[in-house]
Amino acid sequence: MGIAMFIGIDIGGTNIKGVLVDKDGNIINFKKVLTSGSSKEIEDEICQLIEYLITSRSISKNSIKAIGIGAPGSIDRKKGIIITSPNIKSWKRYPIVKRIEERIGIRVFLENDATSAVVGEWWKGNGMNFRSWIMLTLGTGIGGGAIIDNKLYTGQSGSSMEFGHTSIDYKGRRCSCGNRGCLEIYASATALVRFTKSGLRDYVKSSIHSRINREELTAKLIYEEALKGDDLARIVFNKVSTFLGIGIANLVNIFNPAAVILGGGLSRAYKVMLPVVKGVVSDRALNGLKEDVKYLIVKEEEKIPAQGAAKLAMDGYSKLE
Amino acid sequence: MGIAMFIGIDIGGTNIKGVLVDKDGNIINFKKVLTSGSSKEIEDEICQLIEYLITSRSISKNSIKAIGIGAPGSIDRKKGIIITSPNIKSWKRYPIVKRIEERIGIRVFLENDATSAVVGEWWKGNGMNFRSWIMLTLGTGIGGGAIIDNKLYTGQSGSSMEFGHTSIDYKGRRCSCGNRGCLEIYASATALVRFTKSGLRDYVKSSIHSRINREELTAKLIYEEALKGDDLARIVFNKVSTFLGIGIANLVNIFNPAAVILGGGLSRAYKVMLPVVKGVVSDRALNGLKEDVKYLIVKEEEKIPAQGAAKLAMDGYSKLE
Repeated sequence: MGIAMFIGIDIGGTNIKGVLVDKDGNIINFKKVLTSGSSKEIEDEICQLIEYLITSRSISKNSIKAIGIGAPGSIDRKKGIIITSPNIKSWKRYPIVKRIEERIGIRVFLENDATSAVVGEWWKGNGMNFRSWIMLTLGTGIGGGAIIDNKLYTGQSGSSMEFGHTSIDYKGRRCSCGNRGCLEIYASATALVRFTKSGLRDYVKSSIHSRINREELTAKLIYEEALKGDDLARIVFNKVSTFLGIGIANLVNIFNPAAVILGGGLSRAYKVMLPVVKGVVSDRALNGLKEDVKYLIVKEEEKIPAQGAAKLAMDGYSKLE
Repeated sequence: MGIAMFIGIDIGGTNIKGVLVDKDGNIINFKKVLTSGSSKEIEDEICQLIEYLITSRSISKNSIKAIGIGAPGSIDRKKGIIITSPNIKSWKRYPIVKRIEERIGIRVFLENDATSAVVGEWWKGNGMNFRSWIMLTLGTGIGGGAIIDNKLYTGQSGSSMEFGHTSIDYKGRRCSCGNRGCLEIYASATALVRFTKSGLRDYVKSSIHSRINREELTAKLIYEEALKGDDLARIVFNKVSTFLGIGIANLVNIFNPAAVILGGGLSRAYKVMLPVVKGVVSDRALNGLKEDVKYLIVKEEEKIPAQGAAKLAMDGYSKLE
């Protein structure tokens, strides 16, 4: 395909990250920008990010064969539409592919953000070392993905591995998806913040009280306080990690995977979470299935999902050729 | 491989079934016998069954290249040992492969009964029509299996898809596996009987009362009464089917499979169970993943698991050749 380069965009609630890669996945350019509120502003930011990735390396636009976008929420990849997005409320049946293609003039492919992350980790991350593994992306919600026999598992209709929407308590709290007791109600960054909020009444001495007078209560803030030894922060991390272990134990019993890889913002707290997760899986998963599972963290958290989106664009483009 | 035939044995709690098949899976001979109590008796029965399958068709023993045995419980397929079996308590680290090989003089391969059933359904049943599907075997416990991209998924250590041991209630009843709230506690034949027993106190007019004066309370008995309209029987079937739906909704969100196939003794009650299961999955699984799932029942319930065991023997044998 001559000189061929690809762009990958990962749209997160806080940042939009973009990479320019060659066909071997080497990063030629990277940039992240803050995610704004309105859909129009985000669209502008994505277009500016794409233009920056190309022009700041003095690359001819013709070399960019395709752009991949990994977006959170419910998407229709065939129609190129973001149906709904948990973080970006203004996106309702938003025809992002058509909009960006019209403005940039390069073919765009849309994918789920968790799938992009799995593909990135498979192409350029820890996933390279295993034939069959699963990944959980811990953020506002919990996304998932699986590489089975060195191939992305996509399911019958192109969506699958919604680990965040597996119920661990059939009579539990109602989830936005309609089900009850979904894992992401208990083990996402959102859950961590919710548990902390309700714990503040009982932990009047928690150092979190003084911080939230000045700042928003975020998973990052809670993690910082957990590292400093704050009781409440440690208890809620223990709770969320326990729930995550319960969910992963189910997945270990299903997949008997070579590895469980954790990505997403909350996975940055792996130092406090992973020992608890491993203990719970060891208590709950089946003998013969749990012993050899490796636990790994996405190292290049900022770049991997965007790289995955670029890889998906490359694969999509090569099918068109 | 010249004239090559294979024998498959499916060991159940009630019956042992055996098939003699050619290399295309056509059944040349079939027989089932009652399962006795002791391990020695069961071993005798298996050997007699194998001899019968061969001699009653006047086939030369040399034509039988391998025997596959599908056994319930925990197995070590490499060592050919049944570690523990829920139905046959006298089997503890029982070296079944060595014992049968010594007595019959034909190579024996051991596999999990749920896996044998999946392979049978894939080779000669409804599974032939789909590339990616999952199966649940509903019996004393709940076994599982998945064909992914037209290939049996085996997991890292050869065991996987233990759908019966996925927790749907993390703080629920303790399972024999050590976990809590496992699906098989709520949706197996054992669960059906347990729910019925505890319901008998409240349903004093249930026709089940008079029957259990003469007979053992079994899933079959409860099903017969459900068909006749007994309130208690219908309520417990509704309950078990609801739980099964909850478990399958999780699996639909994970696999987005083309089909969910139900096998095992309890699946014979599909007429009362399937409408409830479908309703629950429709309520609980994600839009975009649940709509196109087909629900199918193993038709040749008596033969399919044994055929699968024969197929696994054939595959094992061809690797040795």
